[in-house]
Amino acid sequence: MSVGTDAGLLAPTWAGTPAAAEVTDEAWLQAMLDAEVALARAQYAVGLTPAAAVRAIASVARADRLDLVALAHAARAAANPVVALVTAFTEVVAAKDAAAAEYVHRGSTSQDILDSAAMLVAGRVLGLIAADLQRTGAALAALADTHRHTVLAGRTLAQHAVPTTFGLKAAGWLQLVGDALVRVRAVASALPAQLGGAAGTLAAYGEYALLDRGEGQEDGESGAGGRNPDGGEGGVELLRPFAEALGLAEPVLPWHTVRTPVAEVGAVLQLVTGALGKFALDVQTLSRTEIGEVSEPAAAGRGASSAMPQKRNPALATLIVSAARQVPAHSLVLAQCLLAEDERPAGAWHAEWQPLREALRLAGGAAHTAVELAEGLVVHPERMLANLELTGGALVTERLTVVLAPALGKVRAKKLLTAASAEAADTGRPLAEVLAGHPELSARFTPARLSELLDPARYTGAADALVDRALGRFAELDDRGGSR
Amino acid sequence: MSVGTDAGLLAPTWAGTPAAAEVTDEAWLQAMLDAEVALARAQYAVGLTPAAAVRAIASVARADRLDLVALAHAARAAANPVVALVTAFTEVVAAKDAAAAEYVHRGSTSQDILDSAAMLVAGRVLGLIAADLQRTGAALAALADTHRHTVLAGRTLAQHAVPTTFGLKAAGWLQLVGDALVRVRAVASALPAQLGGAAGTLAAYGEYALLDRGEGQEDGESGAGGRNPDGGEGGVELLRPFAEALGLAEPVLPWHTVRTPVAEVGAVLQLVTGALGKFALDVQTLSRTEIGEVSEPAAAGRGASSAMPQKRNPALATLIVSAARQVPAHSLVLAQCLLAEDERPAGAWHAEWQPLREALRLAGGAAHTAVELAEGLVVHPERMLANLELTGGALVTERLTVVLAPALGKVRAKKLLTAASAEAADTGRPLAEVLAGHPELSARFTPARLSELLDPARYTGAADALVDRALGRFAELDDRGGSR
Amino acid sequence: MSVGTDAGLLAPTWAGTPAAAEVTDEAWLQAMLDAEVALARAQYAVGLTPAAAVRAIASVARADRLDLVALAHAARAAANPVVALVTAFTEVVAAKDAAAAEYVHRGSTSQDILDSAAMLVAGRVLGLIAADLQRTGAALAALADTHRHTVLAGRTLAQHAVPTTFGLKAAGWLQLVGDALVRVRAVASALPAQLGGAAGTLAAYGEYALLDRGEGQEDGESGAGGRNPDGGEGGVELLRPFAEALGLAEPVLPWHTVRTPVAEVGAVLQLVTGALGKFALDVQTLSRTEIGEVSEPAAAGRGASSAMPQKRNPALATLIVSAARQVPAHSLVLAQCLLAEDERPAGAWHAEWQPLREALRLAGGAAHTAVELAEGLVVHPERMLANLELTGGALVTERLTVVLAPALGKVRAKKLLTAASAEAADTGRPLAEVLAGHPELSARFTPARLSELLDPARYTGAADALVDRALGRFAELDDRGGSR
Amino acid sequence: MSVGTDAGLLAPTWAGTPAAAEVTDEAWLQAMLDAEVALARAQYAVGLTPAAAVRAIASVARADRLDLVALAHAARAAANPVVALVTAFTEVVAAKDAAAAEYVHRGSTSQDILDSAAMLVAGRVLGLIAADLQRTGAALAALADTHRHTVLAGRTLAQHAVPTTFGLKAAGWLQLVGDALVRVRAVASALPAQLGGAAGTLAAYGEYALLDRGEGQEDGESGAGGRNPDGGEGGVELLRPFAEALGLAEPVLPWHTVRTPVAEVGAVLQLVTGALGKFALDVQTLSRTEIGEVSEPAAAGRGASSAMPQKRNPALATLIVSAARQVPAHSLVLAQCLLAEDERPAGAWHAEWQPLREALRLAGGAAHTAVELAEGLVVHPERMLANLELTGGALVTERLTVVLAPALGKVRAKKLLTAASAEAADTGRPLAEVLAGHPELSARFTPARLSELLDPARYTGAADALVDRALGRFAELDDRGGSR
Repeated sequence: MSVGTDAGLLAPTWAGTPAAAEVTDEAWLQAMLDAEVALARAQYAVGLTPAAAVRAIASVARADRLDLVALAHAARAAANPVVALVTAFTEVVAAKDAAAAEYVHRGSTSQDILDSAAMLVAGRVLGLIAADLQRTGAALAALADTHRHTVLAGRTLAQHAVPTTFGLKAAGWLQLVGDALVRVRAVASALPAQLGGAAGTLAAYGEYALLDRGEGQEDGESGAGGRNPDGGEGGVELLRPFAEALGLAEPVLPWHTVRTPVAEVGAVLQLVTGALGKFALDVQTLSRTEIGEVSEPAAAGRGASSAMPQKRNPALATLIVSAARQVPAHSLVLAQCLLAEDERPAGAWHAEWQPLREALRLAGGAAHTAVELAEGLVVHPERMLANLELTGGALVTERLTVVLAPALGKVRAKKLLTAASAEAADTGRPLAEVLAGHPELSARFTPARLSELLDPARYTGAADALVDRALGRFAELDDRGGSR
Repeated sequence: MSVGTDAGLLAPTWAGTPAAAEVTDEAWLQAMLDAEVALARAQYAVGLTPAAAVRAIASVARADRLDLVALAHAARAAANPVVALVTAFTEVVAAKDAAAAEYVHRGSTSQDILDSAAMLVAGRVLGLIAADLQRTGAALAALADTHRHTVLAGRTLAQHAVPTTFGLKAAGWLQLVGDALVRVRAVASALPAQLGGAAGTLAAYGEYALLDRGEGQEDGESGAGGRNPDGGEGGVELLRPFAEALGLAEPVLPWHTVRTPVAEVGAVLQLVTGALGKFALDVQTLSRTEIGEVSEPAAAGRGASSAMPQKRNPALATLIVSAARQVPAHSLVLAQCLLAEDERPAGAWHAEWQPLREALRLAGGAAHTAVELAEGLVVHPERMLANLELTGGALVTERLTVVLAPALGKVRAKKLLTAASAEAADTGRPLAEVLAGHPELSARFTPARLSELLDPARYTGAADALVDRALGRFAELDDRGGSR
Repeated sequence: MSVGTDAGLLAPTWAGTPAAAEVTDEAWLQAMLDAEVALARAQYAVGLTPAAAVRAIASVARADRLDLVALAHAARAAANPVVALVTAFTEVVAAKDAAAAEYVHRGSTSQDILDSAAMLVAGRVLGLIAADLQRTGAALAALADTHRHTVLAGRTLAQHAVPTTFGLKAAGWLQLVGDALVRVRAVASALPAQLGGAAGTLAAYGEYALLDRGEGQEDGESGAGGRNPDGGEGGVELLRPFAEALGLAEPVLPWHTVRTPVAEVGAVLQLVTGALGKFALDVQTLSRTEIGEVSEPAAAGRGASSAMPQKRNPALATLIVSAARQVPAHSLVLAQCLLAEDERPAGAWHAEWQPLREALRLAGGAAHTAVELAEGLVVHPERMLANLELTGGALVTERLTVVLAPALGKVRAKKLLTAASAEAADTGRPLAEVLAGHPELSARFTPARLSELLDPARYTGAADALVDRALGRFAELDDRGGSR
Repeated sequence: MSVGTDAGLLAPTWAGTPAAAEVTDEAWLQAMLDAEVALARAQYAVGLTPAAAVRAIASVARADRLDLVALAHAARAAANPVVALVTAFTEVVAAKDAAAAEYVHRGSTSQDILDSAAMLVAGRVLGLIAADLQRTGAALAALADTHRHTVLAGRTLAQHAVPTTFGLKAAGWLQLVGDALVRVRAVASALPAQLGGAAGTLAAYGEYALLDRGEGQEDGESGAGGRNPDGGEGGVELLRPFAEALGLAEPVLPWHTVRTPVAEVGAVLQLVTGALGKFALDVQTLSRTEIGEVSEPAAAGRGASSAMPQKRNPALATLIVSAARQVPAHSLVLAQCLLAEDERPAGAWHAEWQPLREALRLAGGAAHTAVELAEGLVVHPERMLANLELTGGALVTERLTVVLAPALGKVRAKKLLTAASAEAADTGRPLAEVLAGHPELSARFTPARLSELLDPARYTGAADALVDRALGRFAELDDRGGSR
């Protein structure tokens, strides 16, 4: 039992989702092997490693050729898994082609492999997330459009405030999803490959290049020329082909201790779960038994309880909220790890890996879940109307204040309405009735006009126009995303 | 590849350690089954469930009888794994003994099972941690005692300050380990079982009790009596036997949304890794190439680099520090989850599980690693002496200030020494020489006395007595722990 | 405008509360001066500093004698405020009594003063918090007792679950408050004084002691004797009188880099706001317009909106929740600062001060606010009843499952109730009606029995007994607190 | 003493810095008044509020006209300061011009004012930070250029690794500063004004517009036309002029609960302090007594100790690091607050204000400090050389492995060098000597070639070219920043 199955028993947000599959130990191991292959390819591209060696290396670079558990346990010796991985993988290559084994991990360092693998893994999950955000956004846009005239109570500090529309509410969720999508795309497209060698100078890469070019050999003269007497371009020429082989961006510098890329992934993931978390939190509130304005999409077993037959819990929203409560903490660790001393820190680098993985799959799982929630959300306009009537019109007192202001002054108008609202609340009489009995109002407004003024559906302000603005902005994003 | 192996490839701090084995999906699943068995036992203990049913349930309550991956994936429907677990386990029991299946999860709710399992798992890991802290403390106590006269530079803000002893340094580490141990023991011994039923009233437990006692049956009269007309003691009588069956503490109340127990585990785990992290951070500093005052215990492959043959990295300390950089974030999530609305929150409970698991294994792995580091730490007193001499006596200028104060006044004495220190630093001349040439000093002190005053080994204050105090305190803890 | 007023414009949780007054810059400055006075007193107590000097020092140790703003700005030079404080305070003392100035800060270091001041400040705020938790607890206990039979819907995952009582709900809040109180008291009573000198060896304290005793003078022989040839007891004898002069606990060791005391204050403060935050969150939920089961105590202007006359926002609860959302982050910083390298860290110590201050006043303000909320909470049992009826009895389906289990088996019974609940929800018919039409039930239960079974008030389980347990536990705490 | 002075006694990182002045209570109050003025101006711009009223409002909109402490304390009633501010400010305006008072806060809500003020304040501090990052970057660029051939030990996991250059080290710091600068500029230029009215529909703004245009009056017909029968454009027309009056971006939607803007400010601030923190952490390490490769700029009193005359602590770096340890926690709170329920949350909004303020001034103070540190950093190339020699050439064993690989194979070459390094370390003999005695090497290399291979200065790889890349990238940023 000492090695478990990473099935996500305690993480239903991501258990079984596509994001989870991209960040397993196996997937990371494969990504590290992908980085080793890319390194060989890049060295071939600049005329160093022979094609046969690259072929041999690539042909056996499969995670299932290695003993993952043994590697994981061996990682304790070096405090990272790459040292043991290189030894084991070199043996695998040697078994295939002894000469090729000399070209494995040539000039490289653990961090080049692990960081590049991390970016590969991050890129794969961010890709899934971007697609799910687009689908979620499209579903929310449809909700916003469909419900642009569906009136419900705007709520502030847990109390009815003034009317709003469900369309505008959905537009707010859409705006957040759009914000997250913009940033996910930006970060995903800039994920850099890592290549620096032992301390970020690329020295060993350069040294091997000299060797292969017949310079700097044994007792011979060093090739000189270029700025570095012994190292030619010293390996800089590898940056581009290595990045290309991985489908990652070419870094300006090795970033062993320039950890912006990792911190940025953390920051964008907390934006993703924060955006979706707001949506989910609202779904939970609106689906409270007493409120009942939306329901989650029904599915067999969905929202079931082990005790209570009647329960239909907002399970999808709960999965999303639980992720949103966790991801900022992982993101914080990644931000703290910007404080990476020297050319490789003794702990700050090592502290990134698990939070990065967990944040990726939590955000990935949340985005996957949000698609289902947004596409299937059931809206109950009749409950929205019923709830609007609960306070007998109190939620349009703001409007009455405005309308009375020219006559009474703003301050006196607000006092009058405050008193009338309190009287209605204390006596249980409808506000309209209380107001109708008030001389300041009855003198000014016909009953019909008062009734109109008290109609929540006629006090939704710019909700409709705002929905259009939000739809327009998302459509722009969508177009831009589509053309990429 | 969609379900990975939880081998800890990215978590060398805990990969392959005993703590890791206690928190796998499999181990949690088993703990949930243990909770189901304990529930049956407790109901038997108060005269409800028949002995045969308990035997049947207990006999098949093994994690390997269930499809863990299927359960994990099914958990998404209910947002927790217990609903699916109960269904599957009931089938397993029914296959063994159809009548016994009626007694599975009787009256219970998901949270009773999962929270109780969490406490079981936490208790197992805290037990491992306590043992490792004791061993680490014992090793540090030995270091403190052995090196009570080994002088080295005290360092503040990264600069030599005044002399101290390595014994006192180890005593500080010991004090932290002792602080952590006290709190680990306190928390571990108070971990409560969870039993509340659907909303914490124990109602269904009570209802089943009435049924089994032949009361409240179908059309019959309810038994009444007791405070609750329908529910007898309403299930309270189960609290003690259930807790006893699990080896956990009896709760005052169901704590579905009284989350102190979980938050406290989080708080104590960050104390564990913080305490060990300080020790490890100091080891890293002291083993810097330029300082070289301690080395990690050597072992084949330990501290190796994939690039540099000469490297002997402080790998054990790095494993510990990397854990210490992560655990506070998990602990924060657990603290945030105290804000659990209603009788069961929609997300805050669900957000606890992964952080709790990861914090447990990180702290467990760190404690396991600390034993090896403390027991094997190699101390280099000769390097400590050499480093003390680097500043030519500057680190005893505080003492000279004191000695000169009666004659010159404290302020003037400090100014004189500040100037002399700066002169020594700027010219590279030894401070003793600069001071010897100063009339205020040469008039007052013989060269021998001056030399004595400048001897770091004669300015270690109460270091020796403080070591004794720390050893005494830890010995007390040790005794107390032993007798438990 | 460059120096502002710390009025709490952005922190209404603590603005103007007693806790806020205890942590102002002025209060911290005074606490540092208190520590300087205590140091002089302790040195007098062991026969060193003359009584006249102590009197002179104590007589001018008032924050208003110093230019706080100048000190704060000067603190940038040394990265802490004590260096400038000592210079300025020495001048103040010298102006009063030149000879006494020699005894200011004798043998001390910045951290001794600032850490001791921090513990003084923390102790003052924790004292306020403990008192407010006791009052809050007493009010919650009264609510629990009064409402032990007030039935309301238990809610899980935002949905009605099974009935519970408001008394039990209040008992859960009480339990959390009690948990916090126990830990506040424990931490408050163990806050240690800090005394270590430049690097924690107490060396300069010991050196001054030798001087005052006429030993170790200039060219004379050192007094020797004792364990340290030059330092007598080396200052250890000061620990107890210093701590006593401050009303703090005597430390085992100087804790310059043994930061348990600060981390523990952080941990307990997040428990305080977490406990109160759960209470406040529930108040917010229960006071939602649609739920309306509790109201905050009314007060002029309380809960007003700048826009909406009718609003009565749950302002007290909001103040508490906003604190609870912040404190864990401050606590995290304090926990991270356990990783304090060397004998004084270059940043980790300095990072503690603001989070400690802010966490203290947020928790202090939250506790102050909670008293008012708990003592004035208005409960609306009639709304609780009305809400219970919303689902037409669905929240007792669990009970029906139990009662049907002997006849149908648990699994079939649950399926039957699940289907009936869904039918009721989908058709809008009352569950009782749906069930009455079901042959499995009508055959088994008389209409009267069915009606009884569907009565939420008859399905509150052990709520009553649990309330008693909670009251009993809090009474014990209260007694223990009273006798201290 | 109950209201303190916000002088930063516990926050030397920002005490007395320009950033601190921008975030005082007074400055926030002024920013809120600025928002009120901008609202009046915007309403005038669309033809509503009369010019005279705008002039009157603007003429008295000064923080010193209001009783800040009273406002702060009054804020507890509404849980935000704006309600009391509006009352007080209306009185101030009325005293000047009674008619103008009617136009104060017209149609507005607390959050419009406070959020807009927050963006103003944030914009001011981000502007300071951007300027300081540019200066810091320029200084680091100069260091990178000047020291492109200054060789020092690259260090990984606290151990000498392979040689690098101080220029490349500075280039890494520069890269981070550039990353932060890019993001600061992006966020600063997109800070949106907030305008939504009570629940984000802009309804009251629209209502006042109708009124002023003589529509919708008392008993008259509503103007209709436009999409909203009663509200014209409903206030959307105010978004642009309001944003322009504030110098902020026009929002797509009101963002009362679309909190991306605040979360993004938090994220960018942690990037700023993380970037600067890495620089500062390296300065601390390099200025350790045993390492001594850099010193902080000297200044009277800088780095002084209250106890030790000889101390010159890295005080500037410490100020920066202490900020970097705190800001991620504030940023986390802001990220958590994305989970803002409804149209205005009951706590999540209120929890943003203090963390936002503190993060702004910590980052602002850190940036201010970094300028001084970068511009004045003293580099000691001779100590770098001396430290390089400490290990007798061990830090170029990687190079030897490469050079020997063709002959021995990579694996065997690494083993040989590992053994030789261990022998050198264990015996204390220089590695060169050990290697010279080794037949595999002496047979292959002349002593001169071996000596050359062991010269750290000849193994700096692409350091020089990488410096150029970093300089080029920063120059691009600089240009772009200058032209904006």
